[in-house]
Amino acid sequence: MNNLFYEKASVLIIGNEILSGRTIDKNFNYIATKLDEHGISISESRTVSDSEEEIINAINELRKRFKYVFTTGGIGPTHDDVTAESIAKAFNVKLEVNNEAYKILEDYYNNLGTEFNDVRQRMARIPKGAKLIKNQISAAPGFNIENVYVFAGIPKVMQSMLDEALKNIEKKDKINKSTIEVDVPEGEIAKILEKTVKNNTDVSIGSYPFYNTKDDYGVKIEISSLNNNSLIKAIDDLKVHLSKESIKYR
Amino acid sequence: MNNLFYEKASVLIIGNEILSGRTIDKNFNYIATKLDEHGISISESRTVSDSEEEIINAINELRKRFKYVFTTGGIGPTHDDVTAESIAKAFNVKLEVNNEAYKILEDYYNNLGTEFNDVRQRMARIPKGAKLIKNQISAAPGFNIENVYVFAGIPKVMQSMLDEALKNIEKKDKINKSTIEVDVPEGEIAKILEKTVKNNTDVSIGSYPFYNTKDDYGVKIEISSLNNNSLIKAIDDLKVHLSKESIKYR
Repeated sequence: MNNLFYEKASVLIIGNEILSGRTIDKNFNYIATKLDEHGISISESRTVSDSEEEIINAINELRKRFKYVFTTGGIGPTHDDVTAESIAKAFNVKLEVNNEAYKILEDYYNNLGTEFNDVRQRMARIPKGAKLIKNQISAAPGFNIENVYVFAGIPKVMQSMLDEALKNIEKKDKINKSTIEVDVPEGEIAKILEKTVKNNTDVSIGSYPFYNTKDDYGVKIEISSLNNNSLIKAIDDLKVHLSKESIKYR
Repeated sequence: MNNLFYEKASVLIIGNEILSGRTIDKNFNYIATKLDEHGISISESRTVSDSEEEIINAINELRKRFKYVFTTGGIGPTHDDVTAESIAKAFNVKLEVNNEAYKILEDYYNNLGTEFNDVRQRMARIPKGAKLIKNQISAAPGFNIENVYVFAGIPKVMQSMLDEALKNIEKKDKINKSTIEVDVPEGEIAKILEKTVKNNTDVSIGSYPFYNTKDDYGVKIEISSLNNNSLIKAIDDLKVHLSKESIKYR
């Protein structure tokens, strides 16, 4: 993964429905893939419940350790949406009605002919000093405060907010990657991988066994490096070692 | 979620391939669903990379905070499988060849007519004092040390290990749950939910908006309680409030 070269980020998923197994999280993998394309790697991800205390503790730990923290979930209008309050408390700033957010929401509901009631107005409350993150799907914005980016939990809305946020985050070099697949068990190639790792210090090699059926199993070997020449050399090394042991690869 | 009544657990997913987005985690939701049936709720989940330091830190924090910690990933034979070493270090015990594990692996590879080489022998190294967790799919066992349960990352193997581990964990009362779906946005029902929450203190109510298309959106309301009568009363209350506002539910 070559963490050394990447900007490091963490993701905080907020929601009881994920923890209980009722809902399958659809956001993490999307965020990871988009960030990877942007030259940012995720070093840690956490999922916590809709609890102020847990969100505050997680945010305060993660924002100190990582360059970026991305959160999903808990910014809607209902009683279990406590993310905005929690982030404000974590940063020790006021949660206040943001005029721009208020106007966006007011216009949106007026256009729909729907009442802009007081629970909807709650979604205009943004931690003092935060910048809004708008989205193309729904009116209620996310926000960015220091290195923390707060997104909605609904996948389409989150995706739109992530696109918006990435416009303001510098794109770093993307890592060069290659995959080789073998049909033998991990135990047959462990030594070969070790040798290749030792002789190729500026690449990172991951070994991911798969086991579909008794007859369909093997290992996906992922080689990555910021330096394309190093990547090519490591792949060549690996292929030579595999060939010596008569292990077929593709 | 009524965390108060449940035994609390955390899950630690170990693997660069999940963090980079290359692989979608298939284990967490399975574990959450199985634990829920067993009367155990997950309070926090983390994903960290194949790094000894990160695994040790996470394990030592989580095992103090939660009744159970379940880990997946990193117990294979390759250079990036560092979970067993890390757990031994976290507990400050030796990582030693476990005779029972060695015998299981030796028999397995002998039966296959495959060499039981030294990298495969690595999988017989288990933290001193840990109990093996066998599985029906592959030979290499997971293990349980104090309140930490260490499973493989390959879903089928993990599932078999989880079944095995749950045999030795007391089953607690399962929570009573019910779901009501409405086709209006969250902002229309937020006050109703708040009222229902206030008048029904021993239930937990979650509100999960969905947004499939412009015309297909709404909210799934989840009500849960350990006490079935409380659950029924809360559902009745909620339905009365929804009817008063002419909001259809199903």
